[in-house]
Amino acid sequence: MAQETSQIAPRYLTGDKAGLQEFLAKFDVFLFDCDGLSPVLALPRLSLRGGVLWSGDHLFPGTVETLELLRNNGKQVVFVTNNSTKSRADYRKKLESLGIPSTVEEIFSSSYSSSIYISRILQLPENKRKVYVIGETGIEQELRSENVPFIGGTDPAYRRDVTPDDYKKIAAGDESIIDPEVGVVLVGLDFHMNYLKMALAYHYIRRGAVFLATNIDSTLPSSGSLFPGAGSMSAPLIMMLNKEPIALGKPSQAMMDSIEGKFKFDRSRACMVGDRANTDIRFGLEGKLGGTLGVLTGVSSKEDFVSGDVRPHAYLDKLSDLLGSE
Amino acid sequence: MAQETSQIAPRYLTGDKAGLQEFLAKFDVFLFDCDGLSPVLALPRLSLRGGVLWSGDHLFPGTVETLELLRNNGKQVVFVTNNSTKSRADYRKKLESLGIPSTVEEIFSSSYSSSIYISRILQLPENKRKVYVIGETGIEQELRSENVPFIGGTDPAYRRDVTPDDYKKIAAGDESIIDPEVGVVLVGLDFHMNYLKMALAYHYIRRGAVFLATNIDSTLPSSGSLFPGAGSMSAPLIMMLNKEPIALGKPSQAMMDSIEGKFKFDRSRACMVGDRANTDIRFGLEGKLGGTLGVLTGVSSKEDFVSGDVRPHAYLDKLSDLLGSE
Repeated sequence: MAQETSQIAPRYLTGDKAGLQEFLAKFDVFLFDCDGLSPVLALPRLSLRGGVLWSGDHLFPGTVETLELLRNNGKQVVFVTNNSTKSRADYRKKLESLGIPSTVEEIFSSSYSSSIYISRILQLPENKRKVYVIGETGIEQELRSENVPFIGGTDPAYRRDVTPDDYKKIAAGDESIIDPEVGVVLVGLDFHMNYLKMALAYHYIRRGAVFLATNIDSTLPSSGSLFPGAGSMSAPLIMMLNKEPIALGKPSQAMMDSIEGKFKFDRSRACMVGDRANTDIRFGLEGKLGGTLGVLTGVSSKEDFVSGDVRPHAYLDKLSDLLGSE
Repeated sequence: MAQETSQIAPRYLTGDKAGLQEFLAKFDVFLFDCDGLSPVLALPRLSLRGGVLWSGDHLFPGTVETLELLRNNGKQVVFVTNNSTKSRADYRKKLESLGIPSTVEEIFSSSYSSSIYISRILQLPENKRKVYVIGETGIEQELRSENVPFIGGTDPAYRRDVTPDDYKKIAAGDESIIDPEVGVVLVGLDFHMNYLKMALAYHYIRRGAVFLATNIDSTLPSSGSLFPGAGSMSAPLIMMLNKEPIALGKPSQAMMDSIEGKFKFDRSRACMVGDRANTDIRFGLEGKLGGTLGVLTGVSSKEDFVSGDVRPHAYLDKLSDLLGSE
């Protein structure tokens, strides 16, 4: 059904008051993509684009009013981000700094998604519940919020050179360095990635731990350019193990399952809002959501939405065109 | 011709004095694979195998005498290794510690291969001759031996956390951190790999530097197990750039070109000796060497050699069976 819908022409709703009202009435939940900055790698110089709610540090006019309209009409608003380095509380502060009022409960980050997946979806044996973390504090905070025990992460004990002794102990499975209770390796963006952390992650997975990634975006946009992203942390492990991780960020459906696990919503009454056909809209369609809404303030063009391979149910010039329903 | 040869049954020479004499007379140069330990990843427990000249710390009986026989008959002996962390001088010491007399000139490592490739094969513009190195001292020593200027490597200035300032300067191409003369990025095994080094390598390649890897072995055998190898250092860059490096180790033909660039031999008069059909023997066949010789003291079995996809011209139970030619 989602796939069929993606093959018909999407409805253009900007300025169509009745159409907007009809569209809004269909949904109780709106998921907003928050990872708008998506540069086109093929170009020699970076093409920096906007997103759904803001572009860079610049909030699109009408964003706050649009979110208020939705909330005032009883719609659940969810901010979805692949950012794993921030906890939901950190991310709420980021939204606030951009001028967007929100609550922690409205935020769904890949670090939180991972924690939900581990605590509520994975069925781990009693003695294999510990998570070995590659990543920063955002992941740790969210694992704590779900009472998931973990090691690694920002622990300074792992921020050191590998020693000859490490090789021997890791190879032998010595419990002074290999924790037998680790049943999951969770890999997110780690600015302190090193050889020791990589070796440990490899050995835990070889010993049977589930291989998870907060997200597999290979790059991280920063300072108007690109830097290594969470996917780059998984890349050596994928090569060594010849195995892909379960990714907990968009467009992986494991993230949709986590969102559903948390909000218990009716997928047919939920709508994904995004600027990228191939990631956001695909995420919604593959998740069999009742609706997908494209906006033209980001990566995908009108042509992408109208005649591309992946088409939203409806699209707008900009998100604040939803205000035209009033 | 090499491909045709690989499809006919290889000649079994153990105990065949006339056959051995005939075979040896065909070649002036013998290339020996030195990276014997190649575990089978598919097995739950590591299957550790031997190699051509030794296994682990254990030299096969007759190895020294066999090498002497070849040298006494005027054959050039070349020890070929993908190990990039050691220089040729370091590697000679390793051979010596195993009981194998050798000279630096007989050793061909992937670090040396890379240096030769950069200095003698790549045609770099005058102002783009610097190499940004990810790797250890072996690479640096070999670049020095070919008078190739480089930055990075073991320089402690790169062994630090990334800072907000780094992002801005790297993105802007600030010359305090991005050297405009870098025309090559060479990635080898680096036990001090970190986020900053990865970000710099990515940006240099994005700015047009040639992407080279000493070798792309994803794992490094150590302590009877596996650890991240040189290929794991390239993996994040391959993912971010969607681009493969030119690899200077076996089985890449760039290494064969480097060996030829150094020894100026007649390929039809050279023979590759190895224990692995898919890497060593393939390396020789694709390099159109006159001969390939398999030995059964390592990874490949008699069945692999006799009826596999890649077949050597001849094979032996063990290397020292060459002594049967006398």
